[in-house]
Amino acid sequence: MEITTPTLLLNKTVCLRNIELMANKAIRHNVEFRPHFKTHQSIEIGRWYRDYGISKITVSSVQMAKYFAGDGWRDITIAFPFNAHEIAEILPLSKSITLNLVVENTYSLEIIARELQSPIGIFLEISTGYARTGINFSNTARIDALLEIIRLHKNLVFRGFLTHAGHTYEAKSKYEVQNLHFDAIKKMAELKSRYTEQFPDLIISIGDTPSCSLSENFTGVDEIRPGNFVFYDLKQNSLGACNIDDIAVRLLCPVVSKQRIRNEVVIYGGAIHLSKDWLTNTDGKPLFGRVILNYDNQKKLLEPNTYVVRLSQEHGVIRCTPPVYSQIQIGDIIEILPVHSCLTAHSMGRYLTSNNEYIDMMPRF
Amino acid sequence: MEITTPTLLLNKTVCLRNIELMANKAIRHNVEFRPHFKTHQSIEIGRWYRDYGISKITVSSVQMAKYFAGDGWRDITIAFPFNAHEIAEILPLSKSITLNLVVENTYSLEIIARELQSPIGIFLEISTGYARTGINFSNTARIDALLEIIRLHKNLVFRGFLTHAGHTYEAKSKYEVQNLHFDAIKKMAELKSRYTEQFPDLIISIGDTPSCSLSENFTGVDEIRPGNFVFYDLKQNSLGACNIDDIAVRLLCPVVSKQRIRNEVVIYGGAIHLSKDWLTNTDGKPLFGRVILNYDNQKKLLEPNTYVVRLSQEHGVIRCTPPVYSQIQIGDIIEILPVHSCLTAHSMGRYLTSNNEYIDMMPRF
Repeated sequence: MEITTPTLLLNKTVCLRNIELMANKAIRHNVEFRPHFKTHQSIEIGRWYRDYGISKITVSSVQMAKYFAGDGWRDITIAFPFNAHEIAEILPLSKSITLNLVVENTYSLEIIARELQSPIGIFLEISTGYARTGINFSNTARIDALLEIIRLHKNLVFRGFLTHAGHTYEAKSKYEVQNLHFDAIKKMAELKSRYTEQFPDLIISIGDTPSCSLSENFTGVDEIRPGNFVFYDLKQNSLGACNIDDIAVRLLCPVVSKQRIRNEVVIYGGAIHLSKDWLTNTDGKPLFGRVILNYDNQKKLLEPNTYVVRLSQEHGVIRCTPPVYSQIQIGDIIEILPVHSCLTAHSMGRYLTSNNEYIDMMPRF
Repeated sequence: MEITTPTLLLNKTVCLRNIELMANKAIRHNVEFRPHFKTHQSIEIGRWYRDYGISKITVSSVQMAKYFAGDGWRDITIAFPFNAHEIAEILPLSKSITLNLVVENTYSLEIIARELQSPIGIFLEISTGYARTGINFSNTARIDALLEIIRLHKNLVFRGFLTHAGHTYEAKSKYEVQNLHFDAIKKMAELKSRYTEQFPDLIISIGDTPSCSLSENFTGVDEIRPGNFVFYDLKQNSLGACNIDDIAVRLLCPVVSKQRIRNEVVIYGGAIHLSKDWLTNTDGKPLFGRVILNYDNQKKLLEPNTYVVRLSQEHGVIRCTPPVYSQIQIGDIIEILPVHSCLTAHSMGRYLTSNNEYIDMMPRF
């Protein structure tokens, strides 16, 4: 296929390898693998997981749950705090599949209890250090109050405790990721031992890609829900969670301008394609992507002294070393490794595979 | 309409007022008003401009040119450096409407000259200080070389010089915006006087919303192409280019969590809705949006000590003052003013108007 505009290229071989490695890791550690599908948001890519025995998935919205339920997924956790405004969409879904909701406050749980006409799985969301949502792991009074509501309503089926240790993304090294992960699973194990007598079937579900990629310690964990690992990206690479060769997506961009005075080339490929997520580069400045070039028909990742320095809506600006600058011509198609593949994929809305076929993502509406 | 998920609300009254004010300003200064449609990307909103006498528009992609040509727009400038890979899409469009391309290098111009079978307008893009694309205004040797190619090909119709003073977005005050604007139009006027004898019909086209909103000096300018002014946003407000009441779009978001320990509330509304563009808040930290709340049935913009402090894919975190924290309940729908309305609109893909109707945007593919 001829590339004419910014195009998200997906390397299926790399993607399948990422899935296989994580699936094998789950088997090795005897944990359920319930991958998060918010990264790829694609029925087609979802089907690739089935070859590795996956039958339970995680999504981040009710819309996404409906989309994947439509392709035959029958056990779905919506790993986003229950939003009471969507109850009318949730009810029919809960009747047709095994649906698990994530709850962390009595307001939400009482609405679910009141409205539900059929059994639904409930995970209590626990914060093990990430400052976003969830009940602080030590707040057992609140956990007790929620479990009391669950006990009173037979349609509320307590599944267990769920956490997303998203603070691993702020770690400065892979050792720090492992420490944060160890801290998180220790906290979750304490909850398990505290409540396991009342709820012998409760499980511990953990989530983030850095921990799941880097750690070999899953003591007390019953289920893992990583998502980003399917593509990985520069952020994961910076954490040590993947190698560059594990990154399965690249944005292909036409070069439209050269600015000799600044050793910059400008690509068609901007914030609406890559997203504005960034990393701090080795020079201390924001990096919005790294560059892969053809040299003698061999693709080569450039050192980070050539990188995407600025993005506007459709433009991306690449600052180059002088030798690299002279290698790039207007009209070339160059490849950008994204900082955050989830946001890049969401922005692009579809993939071109290495087999030259388009793969669709969930429609926006 | 009941709001259940993040929804972009468009205030049509404010939007029409923004259009009218800019249209009147263009008349007052005797400049052509060729608005940039990349901000709203909507046929419906495009039609609103027609009541103000607008017949010529600016877009940022070939796809967008085709989309608006399909609704009867007959004079379109694609204000993005010509991308040779899209020539096959450009050719039929150039036959059916008056199409202007933006060029800044001989490689591109020679391809256009070779491929074109019917007349096409050519703007030479000039950099007046913004470090992105365009020929440096003082590089008359390059301009001469490009004009020589234009002279040799009868299908290349030289329209004039075009600039986008995007460095106004980095200004620290409205006075700095005005200085940068004055500097830019002075440079463009020099080019005009240099080349006007050879090309008596050449025009000077300038672009950015901060300059067009703040300045009353358009000496030597023939055409203005602002886009963002149609909605404005917090970035424009921070530059002094608009008042808060001029911002025509808000993201409506359900509250899904409260975190008393940090005085934070969490909304359903994240990076895939607002985009990750940010401003530096008064406390020196990144601000991803400001909050409007209902008090006694009156909407009130909160001081910037309550603001969106973090975004992940679907979550937004609002840090509150303690009194504000106690006012917000889980299940509330709160309104967020976006930092960058172009990216927020692009992410959302459609609008809900104050008349309770959905307005579509250009489809992604």
